[in-house]
Amino acid sequence: MKEILICNDDGIFAPGIQALIESMRPLGRITVVAPDSPQSGAGHGITLNSTLRINKVKDEENLKMYSTSGTPVDCVKLAVNEIIQKKPDLLVSGINHGSNASINVLYSGTMSAAMEGALEGIPSIGFSLLDHSIDADFESSKHVAQKIAVKVLETGLPWGVCLNVNIPKLSMQEIRGIKWCHQARGNWTEEFDGRTDPSGQKYFWLTGKFKLFDEDEENDIKSLEAGYVSVVPQQCDMTAYDVLKDMKSLNFD
Amino acid sequence: MKEILICNDDGIFAPGIQALIESMRPLGRITVVAPDSPQSGAGHGITLNSTLRINKVKDEENLKMYSTSGTPVDCVKLAVNEIIQKKPDLLVSGINHGSNASINVLYSGTMSAAMEGALEGIPSIGFSLLDHSIDADFESSKHVAQKIAVKVLETGLPWGVCLNVNIPKLSMQEIRGIKWCHQARGNWTEEFDGRTDPSGQKYFWLTGKFKLFDEDEENDIKSLEAGYVSVVPQQCDMTAYDVLKDMKSLNFD
Repeated sequence: MKEILICNDDGIFAPGIQALIESMRPLGRITVVAPDSPQSGAGHGITLNSTLRINKVKDEENLKMYSTSGTPVDCVKLAVNEIIQKKPDLLVSGINHGSNASINVLYSGTMSAAMEGALEGIPSIGFSLLDHSIDADFESSKHVAQKIAVKVLETGLPWGVCLNVNIPKLSMQEIRGIKWCHQARGNWTEEFDGRTDPSGQKYFWLTGKFKLFDEDEENDIKSLEAGYVSVVPQQCDMTAYDVLKDMKSLNFD
Repeated sequence: MKEILICNDDGIFAPGIQALIESMRPLGRITVVAPDSPQSGAGHGITLNSTLRINKVKDEENLKMYSTSGTPVDCVKLAVNEIIQKKPDLLVSGINHGSNASINVLYSGTMSAAMEGALEGIPSIGFSLLDHSIDADFESSKHVAQKIAVKVLETGLPWGVCLNVNIPKLSMQEIRGIKWCHQARGNWTEEFDGRTDPSGQKYFWLTGKFKLFDEDEENDIKSLEAGYVSVVPQQCDMTAYDVLKDMKSLNFD
């Protein structure tokens, strides 16, 4: 029986992780290890300056659930080293409430958990639905997640590479297919909502608008806009090899 | 006069950021925006579920310092959008107490601040010294940082690419030179120290050993071991293009 680890960044009580559990149950024995509170935007953060706790939340046949006080990446490390105490056959993270296309992969706890799995040598996939709502409909996401998970269980993935899967807010009938893509070039602008607290001190909420500057139809954002599920293979090696080639002639001494 | 932004993840009171301020002062007008407490391992985390505060710490001629309640990446966003309110000519992050070579870039708040600068279109560099000690000697790091900063102010860097500079724990006489490298393949293993608290509950400290599996002399770890300063150009595009090429024939439908 296949061993499947499920993580996320929206926390163990998010509807998205419940949807992912339901879609994975037919595929194997499930262990869920997820943060005890929402951690959107946790990135690849880990807990170095404080301690970590694990709580067992559910213990059914082929479904065990644990919450931890840590980040999504801590959850993967705790799962592999302390909870399952072995490498699962598959790690799935999500289903995230909201897009992780383009540079959102850098900020995303969901995708960082998948990347941590890839560093552990586990075939790993992060899933995100383009709908922030707490009442989001995860039906088509569940179908897509199961289909891709079955394929990855068959083929595996190279060390240090995970899949970033984003799913448009559409029914299965409306979705045009599953498409391999590259990460779109883009960025966030206008980022703060400044306010004054009751004692007259200023504080800020992070906000902003995403700006795409990449018109290639093969990028993840454009593919999602066209009604496709986007799949980007994402690697831990962040070296800019093209730049490295050009720079080698530049001498600092 | 050049406008230089300084960030870090060890917090505004760390000796490493003081060393970086000293080495940058001859190059321009300095604004420091750094976390009010240590944030090692913050990764590319951002603050979405709570508010952010800014405190002015120092206001001298050509040197302004601000601490924030946010992560290193929040600091960059706050600096550009609220504090300086424009793009500086250069962003330098660090000097980090400890290595950010190989996959440590993923966990590092210092390198995530530099990457955030690169996303804002600012030429950005992260500096790290291979010495965790609070009494670390930053003398050679200061020389190296200044030399590389001068060069980057001259040449600029492409959008979405920053430099990851690691400095060996050696004197300037012992350092063999500055070398362009790629990110080494490696990972952390054996990661937890489990303990029992006074009330009998278990808790964990994250720990572990780094394992290198990359014998290429051109990688950052090997170059550091050989006595060089390593410089890796690091990009925000995490697409695994080689894998993408192979995978395009794999059909999910």
